[in-house]
Amino acid sequence: MTATTKPHEMLAEMLSAKLEAVDALIRERMASENAPRIPEVTAHLVGAGGKRIRPMLTLASARLMGYEGPHDEKLAATVEFIHTATLLHDDVVDESKQRRGRPTANLLWDNKSSVLVGDYLFARSFQLMVETDSLRVLSILSNAAATIAEGEVLQLSAMSDLATSEDTYVKIVRGKTAALFSAATEVGGVIAGATEAEVQALWTYGDALGIAFQMADDVIDWMEGTGKGYGDDFRECKLTLPMIRAIAGSPEEWGFWARTIGKGQQQEGDLEHVAALLAQTGALDSTRQTALDWAGKARAALRDLPEDPIREVLHDLADYVVARLK
Amino acid sequence: MTATTKPHEMLAEMLSAKLEAVDALIRERMASENAPRIPEVTAHLVGAGGKRIRPMLTLASARLMGYEGPHDEKLAATVEFIHTATLLHDDVVDESKQRRGRPTANLLWDNKSSVLVGDYLFARSFQLMVETDSLRVLSILSNAAATIAEGEVLQLSAMSDLATSEDTYVKIVRGKTAALFSAATEVGGVIAGATEAEVQALWTYGDALGIAFQMADDVIDWMEGTGKGYGDDFRECKLTLPMIRAIAGSPEEWGFWARTIGKGQQQEGDLEHVAALLAQTGALDSTRQTALDWAGKARAALRDLPEDPIREVLHDLADYVVARLK
Repeated sequence: MTATTKPHEMLAEMLSAKLEAVDALIRERMASENAPRIPEVTAHLVGAGGKRIRPMLTLASARLMGYEGPHDEKLAATVEFIHTATLLHDDVVDESKQRRGRPTANLLWDNKSSVLVGDYLFARSFQLMVETDSLRVLSILSNAAATIAEGEVLQLSAMSDLATSEDTYVKIVRGKTAALFSAATEVGGVIAGATEAEVQALWTYGDALGIAFQMADDVIDWMEGTGKGYGDDFRECKLTLPMIRAIAGSPEEWGFWARTIGKGQQQEGDLEHVAALLAQTGALDSTRQTALDWAGKARAALRDLPEDPIREVLHDLADYVVARLK
Repeated sequence: MTATTKPHEMLAEMLSAKLEAVDALIRERMASENAPRIPEVTAHLVGAGGKRIRPMLTLASARLMGYEGPHDEKLAATVEFIHTATLLHDDVVDESKQRRGRPTANLLWDNKSSVLVGDYLFARSFQLMVETDSLRVLSILSNAAATIAEGEVLQLSAMSDLATSEDTYVKIVRGKTAALFSAATEVGGVIAGATEAEVQALWTYGDALGIAFQMADDVIDWMEGTGKGYGDDFRECKLTLPMIRAIAGSPEEWGFWARTIGKGQQQEGDLEHVAALLAQTGALDSTRQTALDWAGKARAALRDLPEDPIREVLHDLADYVVARLK
């Protein structure tokens, strides 16, 4: 480990034995004797090497609270299955062509497989949860699954809707990202038998981390030289927090917003005009600050949890997800 | 009730108070404060008035085994939610334009809503199950959900595959229909505290009923004057049991099958030729007989269960699903 090791890499090192067991479990459980096509589809995604943030959050939370049983691995695999299932379904919803630098499953295998294999992974994730014998874990994760689906539907209906509020934005962000982060940390505490206050702190950490992470992404959409498409959210008429605040801060531009986002009629020069409005209204800076505040909330939640090297890395992780904004 | 009342109508009368409670629960639980679009999509399906066979199987099984608690309603709603979710996802998979005589949700609301609202209903169904406090019920229904998804993937990969076996066909049928039927009857017995032998008998009844039902559908695809499209499965290169047996019984027609189903190159006169082969090889008659045998297996399973008016109607239901074949 060097001084420049990133927090998620540090976590991966600290949890390496557990993560290997989780990977083995994932490979074992995604296999289907009856439908061999299933692992072909999922291997494509699981093998694409995401950062495994969500399963690490579960493993880290359980270890931080002193858990020594076998269920943390099952729950970490559960969380990764739910995440993978939502990615497969998102590909259909977004009609996206690339994910993690590779062609998405729906282009390789078509929409049908994406839908059905996603369903299969959801079902498999519930089978894994049942094996933990904890109704509370099942309740937390089925609530998270409902919040995820609601958030995605909400994002669809908020598309192009200039009346989208900051409150709606936060609900969408919880659905897209934070609900699974907070469920991942919460169940880690629950199986470890943590106190209610500790479970609550773990939930708050995961929730705030997820919101900070997604909000940072929405700011980065407007930062040049990040390797991501500049202004993609505007092109897709997605109302992220920077845009919600820019719209609120520029009532004289109502006609412009109604045309470009309400009707989706965009022309040359519009993107530059939005960038100017984001700066003039201070919308981008204030969103950056809000993301930093959420990261601070995540760090603060850790105070109520035991001192431990794992806690230090979780602390650094909260800084790391917003580090790109500074 | 008249002598011509159909068994499922009879069941609906016998269970009417329970069914009303289930409908109220479905309306309550499909509502989403955060995403009002959800009930719009589901009301379209739930309101289209299916026969409610699956929830009635759960209610009937629980009542037959003497259950008097409140969880049968939750499980009946669960089963209907899972069914509705699979219909929504099937619409995307089949690219279907009509269901129950109305335009399908994916045309009205697009594929995106079908995928996401289906996911929402899956999540809601698991929330309902958790409320029954029974890990065994959760295990049965998550296994059923996995079997359903596997069966659908299997059906996709078996499409146009002339090597599809009868064994594969039965797996597909379990996924499409029988897995949810058998889970519906099994959980009814489980919450009622039935003995293992009784639970097994309920499972066997649901499984055999579902297989007989689907097999009858696949025969009816080749019966004229039923109001369904004649030979649709052939046109879609779906290998149902009549076709699997006709292929096996006509080795001299290999070139014909390879062209029309293997490659999907169909021309005028092909449908009539298949109909002739189904008759010549005896494939249609033998499938009809196999469906009747499964209905007999369903009736036989009831022998191990308590004598009761409900049992009589379940008996008649097994006859009814294959009555169209006689």
